Amino acid sequence: MAARREPVEVYLDLLSQPCRAVHIFLKQNKISYTLKPVAIRKGDQRSPEFTKLNPMQKVPVIVDNGFVLTESDAILKYLATKYKVQQHWYPREPERRARVDEYTAWHHTNTRPHAAKVFILEVVIPRMTGQATEAVKVEKAVTELNGTLDKLESMFLKSQPFLCGDDISLADLLAICELMQPLAGGRDALQDRPKLLAWRSRVQSALQDSFDDAHVVLYRLRDKAKL
Amino acid sequence: MAARREPVEVYLDLLSQPCRAVHIFLKQNKISYTLKPVAIRKGDQRSPEFTKLNPMQKVPVIVDNGFVLTESDAILKYLATKYKVQQHWYPREPERRARVDEYTAWHHTNTRPHAAKVFILEVVIPRMTGQATEAVKVEKAVTELNGTLDKLESMFLKSQPFLCGDDISLADLLAICELMQPLAGGRDALQDRPKLLAWRSRVQSALQDSFDDAHVVLYRLRDKAKL
Repeated sequence: MAARREPVEVYLDLLSQPCRAVHIFLKQNKISYTLKPVAIRKGDQRSPEFTKLNPMQKVPVIVDNGFVLTESDAILKYLATKYKVQQHWYPREPERRARVDEYTAWHHTNTRPHAAKVFILEVVIPRMTGQATEAVKVEKAVTELNGTLDKLESMFLKSQPFLCGDDISLADLLAICELMQPLAGGRDALQDRPKLLAWRSRVQSALQDSFDDAHVVLYRLRDKAKL
Repeated sequence: MAARREPVEVYLDLLSQPCRAVHIFLKQNKISYTLKPVAIRKGDQRSPEFTKLNPMQKVPVIVDNGFVLTESDAILKYLATKYKVQQHWYPREPERRARVDEYTAWHHTNTRPHAAKVFILEVVIPRMTGQATEAVKVEKAVTELNGTLDKLESMFLKSQPFLCGDDISLADLLAICELMQPLAGGRDALQDRPKLLAWRSRVQSALQDSFDDAHVVLYRLRDKAKL
């Protein structure tokens, strides 16, 4: 008989994009987990206790039967393998897996920084300083994000339903969580992009409740921004 | 009988750090390949022919029996799997593999941009403009790189011989190729860091000729910078 596994401990803040991806993945795949909230706005990630766990002072972190792992990209791939989730998330066939690895590698220096930048300029900095960011800076960040969105459409999505093929994968999960982030400032980054909007609908349908559950805090900010 | 495989076509420029990692990996693992040089300084990556292959206009790219793949991180993991190389490069055991994935995810926004920045400021920009970059800018980039080196030592290497454990992995390969780059401007980024210097020696010993072969062009720039 296999040793009984403890639930995966997951340290996260649902306002962090990669944390949401991990949360959705755990829930969607019915992997048993214990939530350990780390409130970034309160600086919890710099507490001595958390720093001991992750000296990088970043979320998400998982602890799986004593194994501590950081970096959402690595966490998702580890969970997919260890918990033998459905193949479509992270296919074993080398060519199909390589497509997911190709996107996730690209993601780190494209989708992630460009969507995050818009959020930082439109939400984080105004909250910290009490002043709106200069329009020209926001405009520059939006233009960069649009360059990334163009590539997402033409080089990854092409005429496929999902970024890496016919079914949802870790690539879609990481991407959607980043692309939702500007909503916190009232901006829908995918507006006027029917191809990406249709993709987002497909991702949301595939994830259902686990998607909305992870985005509750973000939706709250979006609703405030609209007022 | 298995279908005969064509050699892997590999499009690269040996002055590009991730290209060297792929080149070393192919050679070290005796994977049959055909070299397709793409000279970045001549703008070959923007040629219509290459753009058709990779619309991102970036190297490296491989074509393996018709399968086109970009992103060095994904290429190395694909080759390790497809060509069944020795386990230490990219272990199959989930926890050990996760350590390599954790480093490679971190690499994209740390080792890679910070080492590249020093090279750009000390080599690329002076060549383009005919003028040395302001010292204060170089200093800032070197400080950032040093922050990354501190983390490499304390969070990855720790007291292990290699970044992810007892043997060389894809993590060491990607890291070393980035950290060699400032040498082109005559700067040894690892100088005065005995722990990382010892690690570099171990990596070089493990790779032997394939390491020096991939760095021939870089060594030539280093020797010129020293004059």
